[in-house]
Amino acid sequence: MNDVLIRRATAADVAVIVAMIADDQLGATRESIDDLAPYLAAFEQIDADPNQVLVVAERNHEVIGTLQLTIIPGLSRRGSTRGLIEAVRVAASARGAGLGSTLVQWAVDESRTRGCTLVQLTSDKSRTEAHRFYTRLGFANTHEGFKLKLN
Amino acid sequence: MNDVLIRRATAADVAVIVAMIADDQLGATRESIDDLAPYLAAFEQIDADPNQVLVVAERNHEVIGTLQLTIIPGLSRRGSTRGLIEAVRVAASARGAGLGSTLVQWAVDESRTRGCTLVQLTSDKSRTEAHRFYTRLGFANTHEGFKLKLN
Repeated sequence: MNDVLIRRATAADVAVIVAMIADDQLGATRESIDDLAPYLAAFEQIDADPNQVLVVAERNHEVIGTLQLTIIPGLSRRGSTRGLIEAVRVAASARGAGLGSTLVQWAVDESRTRGCTLVQLTSDKSRTEAHRFYTRLGFANTHEGFKLKLN
Repeated sequence: MNDVLIRRATAADVAVIVAMIADDQLGATRESIDDLAPYLAAFEQIDADPNQVLVVAERNHEVIGTLQLTIIPGLSRRGSTRGLIEAVRVAASARGAGLGSTLVQWAVDESRTRGCTLVQLTSDKSRTEAHRFYTRLGFANTHEGFKLKLN
């Protein structure tokens, strides 16, 4: 996708990022965008952590996509560092034009730059279209993803 | 499991941790324990990151288990922080006595203490026994896990 700038998110981007996270079949039930305070507090934690990279994709000064990359050092696989991708979203108005692919490719390149030898992510089992998307990008669906909600 | 101490790993534990990671159907093909240098370099990165917790389980001064917990702040789910569990291993001599459960429960408790509202992990699709184990501990197998190896 041409003319797209991918840059580090700032606090001023939080409202539009959260709107994109909420504008989604699963996100709609999980978010409450009327109160930005918890999101802004979370943004500060992300921004203060050198191993977190929250980015937005911008075109014509409009934010149209987002993604979070976490860099995780580890002992497994001969001391491999891995990149973990979370919260990939493309604004409804910008879907179907390859921006998701541009964002994920950015995260893969950034992971490589930071010395990662592996990039990983999980996707809800109901998101079958996303699964085909990641497979097309070269990801292998080798793992089961488990989650435990805490009270 | 009684008489087990779970403590933060030190550089002196790296050799035994790596031996446990390698002593596994999948790990055996991925590790090369003859050269500890890359593992020690990775340990330094883990140890320097306040959002990484690499622990060992010890009994009678013998290390018999390990696990890595990563704390990940995020915007999704109303600014939720999540805990990510990786590299859970129990020494062959200590298997079948509930130590895996003790380790994972420790990680869940630590995640809660650090303000997480979600704990997540992935498990290779071939590890069907591990999948039943996580389900018994209350984890829901809701996601597909994708990985991309970088050159």
